[in-house]
Amino acid sequence: MIDGAPLNPVLAAAFPPPVMEARRWLAGLSFPPGRPLINVSQAAPVDPPPLPLRQAMADAALNRPDAHLYGPVLGNPDLRAAVAGEFSRSYGGTVEPGQVAITQGCNQAFCAAITTLAQAGDEVILPTPWYFNHKMWLDMQGIRAVPLPCGDDLLPDPDRAAGLIGPRCRAIVLVTPNNPSGAEYPADLVRRFFDLAQDRGIALILDETYRDFDSRSGAPHDLLARPDWDRTVIQLYSFSKAYRLTGHRVGALIASESRMAQVEKFLDTVAISTSQLGQIGALWGMENLGDWLAGERAGILSRRDATVAALSSLPGWRVKSAGAYFAWVQHPLAESSALLAPRMVRDIGVLALPGTMFMPPDDPDGARHLRIAFANVDAAGIAQLAERLRGLGG
Amino acid sequence: MIDGAPLNPVLAAAFPPPVMEARRWLAGLSFPPGRPLINVSQAAPVDPPPLPLRQAMADAALNRPDAHLYGPVLGNPDLRAAVAGEFSRSYGGTVEPGQVAITQGCNQAFCAAITTLAQAGDEVILPTPWYFNHKMWLDMQGIRAVPLPCGDDLLPDPDRAAGLIGPRCRAIVLVTPNNPSGAEYPADLVRRFFDLAQDRGIALILDETYRDFDSRSGAPHDLLARPDWDRTVIQLYSFSKAYRLTGHRVGALIASESRMAQVEKFLDTVAISTSQLGQIGALWGMENLGDWLAGERAGILSRRDATVAALSSLPGWRVKSAGAYFAWVQHPLAESSALLAPRMVRDIGVLALPGTMFMPPDDPDGARHLRIAFANVDAAGIAQLAERLRGLGG
Repeated sequence: MIDGAPLNPVLAAAFPPPVMEARRWLAGLSFPPGRPLINVSQAAPVDPPPLPLRQAMADAALNRPDAHLYGPVLGNPDLRAAVAGEFSRSYGGTVEPGQVAITQGCNQAFCAAITTLAQAGDEVILPTPWYFNHKMWLDMQGIRAVPLPCGDDLLPDPDRAAGLIGPRCRAIVLVTPNNPSGAEYPADLVRRFFDLAQDRGIALILDETYRDFDSRSGAPHDLLARPDWDRTVIQLYSFSKAYRLTGHRVGALIASESRMAQVEKFLDTVAISTSQLGQIGALWGMENLGDWLAGERAGILSRRDATVAALSSLPGWRVKSAGAYFAWVQHPLAESSALLAPRMVRDIGVLALPGTMFMPPDDPDGARHLRIAFANVDAAGIAQLAERLRGLGG
Repeated sequence: MIDGAPLNPVLAAAFPPPVMEARRWLAGLSFPPGRPLINVSQAAPVDPPPLPLRQAMADAALNRPDAHLYGPVLGNPDLRAAVAGEFSRSYGGTVEPGQVAITQGCNQAFCAAITTLAQAGDEVILPTPWYFNHKMWLDMQGIRAVPLPCGDDLLPDPDRAAGLIGPRCRAIVLVTPNNPSGAEYPADLVRRFFDLAQDRGIALILDETYRDFDSRSGAPHDLLARPDWDRTVIQLYSFSKAYRLTGHRVGALIASESRMAQVEKFLDTVAISTSQLGQIGALWGMENLGDWLAGERAGILSRRDATVAALSSLPGWRVKSAGAYFAWVQHPLAESSALLAPRMVRDIGVLALPGTMFMPPDDPDGARHLRIAFANVDAAGIAQLAERLRGLGG
């Protein structure tokens, strides 16, 4: 009980949202104008979408009645078709509109994917460091997250994963480019995980929320070109980062049509349908913002390079991997990142998330690392960040 | 397995979305202009919000950067405060902003409420006929829905409920005004359920999605005026019907602040936050559309009266209860409503949902009833509906 009514002990045991906890570290603090807070905690754009996209959404709000009404549970047909076309083209494969569902953000796509696969008592393999919302959903569903520790290169090892697949294992989850590490998984590594999953009759969930900022050219993997991809792969995507639509909650899930019937049950119950204005904005972005997005990507890649250079020059600090919005950084201080991160807010005006938020409590690697989300910090800010970190000693 | 990967048998056993199934009955049919389809299946407005609300949302899309960015997991502070104020005023009680969460629609509020209370293997009491998405969520979570059959007046009996509360029971759910029956539960009946729930240490979930169309004046119950309401009550609300915002997915959950910490975990994982434009629209509606909403209510109440009068005049048909958007109607035909409903589409151009969609399969009452959602049908349409139903014979 928490008041007079019951409390689900499974939910109670799940940890609270890390991002909300980190926001609380700011409470009661003020930062002088000459030395503002450097916020490298956010895995999201901080600026609104470009004006033409905002205009398109405003126009729809005014003039399209369907922008205000329920849509189909699995998403609007035009957006499903656009996603199918885009993934078919850029991965050199075949994705049909009926293999696409639109969700209220990519977190929800993950929840839907897992619910089609696993029930309480089952297991799902997550490479560590993991994305905390994945772990939270598994926890609150009573599904055991089996950690697969990455190596020093932040890449998961399929051979090691093979040894973790027990009789209750239902899926392996790969996030690439990775949150929190930024690591971009090589295509042949992804392929080896596909072979493993296919061989063992489990699913391979590929979360590519940050695919639009991958530093590599061409398709990041070739799985969708296989005729049988949809027997094993569930692919997830988000429109939030590419088109700055975080406040509208639009994501996508790509899987077999037979699995879509199960996805539809989940989404009907949790969502009914995804925001129409969000879907309209996402489609407009796909159709009109290709060049703009290429510029966004170039800007973020240059911030990545600046971050790696600046942090690598600090004595004792080590950038283990970097990509998408993130660098995964080993710090030289004796204290755990769980204490260091809130102290950094107070002492040097830097908000970053501690590695402990992305690791099992019994893995000492969490204490030694920080996630630095550099995407919203310009070159001057990155230089400032490095200077302030230097001031921590170590 | 459904493709090459696992299938969660608990989700597989949940039934598919009834509304999507009903839509499929229309496939391949056409309706002559002189005799269009009469759609009494929809529990939602079919027109967009009034122009000033659309203008407010368009203006926010253009000019408010925060309309496109993540908001707090539990909702925007201004909307939470407005909901707290409105519920405090209209129920003569005290609801604090910290006791309000904003959700991606009221279905999601129900999912969140249940997840804070119950895990797989637990039980929740649902009066029957039930709202199918409630049943679906319980099914896919492995929680047993314990049916509490209503009497001929469509009211649930607290004494009968008392006998159904076993050691794994975590909550009783009341929907008032009810979907599908339209029944408005008297305040003293709601109070008796509160006393029962409080006495047995379980939660009372009150889903008042249709409260804005209640035919009674004053507060529909007095529970929020009790100082200890939040130890037992979880109250749910939707902005979808009042302000015609179905396509934006905005609902609310009202509960104790201690429970909010658990709600926040669920919402962070499934939603991250609710559509900002939807929240902006909901707040604008609360602040500006009171008179407009009163007119909407009057219109729907007059359609209710017309429906009751028209259907009661049909030989053998019986309106058991009516309210909000719905009438719960007993038909005189020999066939089950599960067959009658799709045949009505083909034979008389009327789409209504069969009682079987709202009842356990072993309850014969489902076969004898239909849900008639009259809210979108004007007086002429209601007369037409009655004429067509008369043509079915019986």
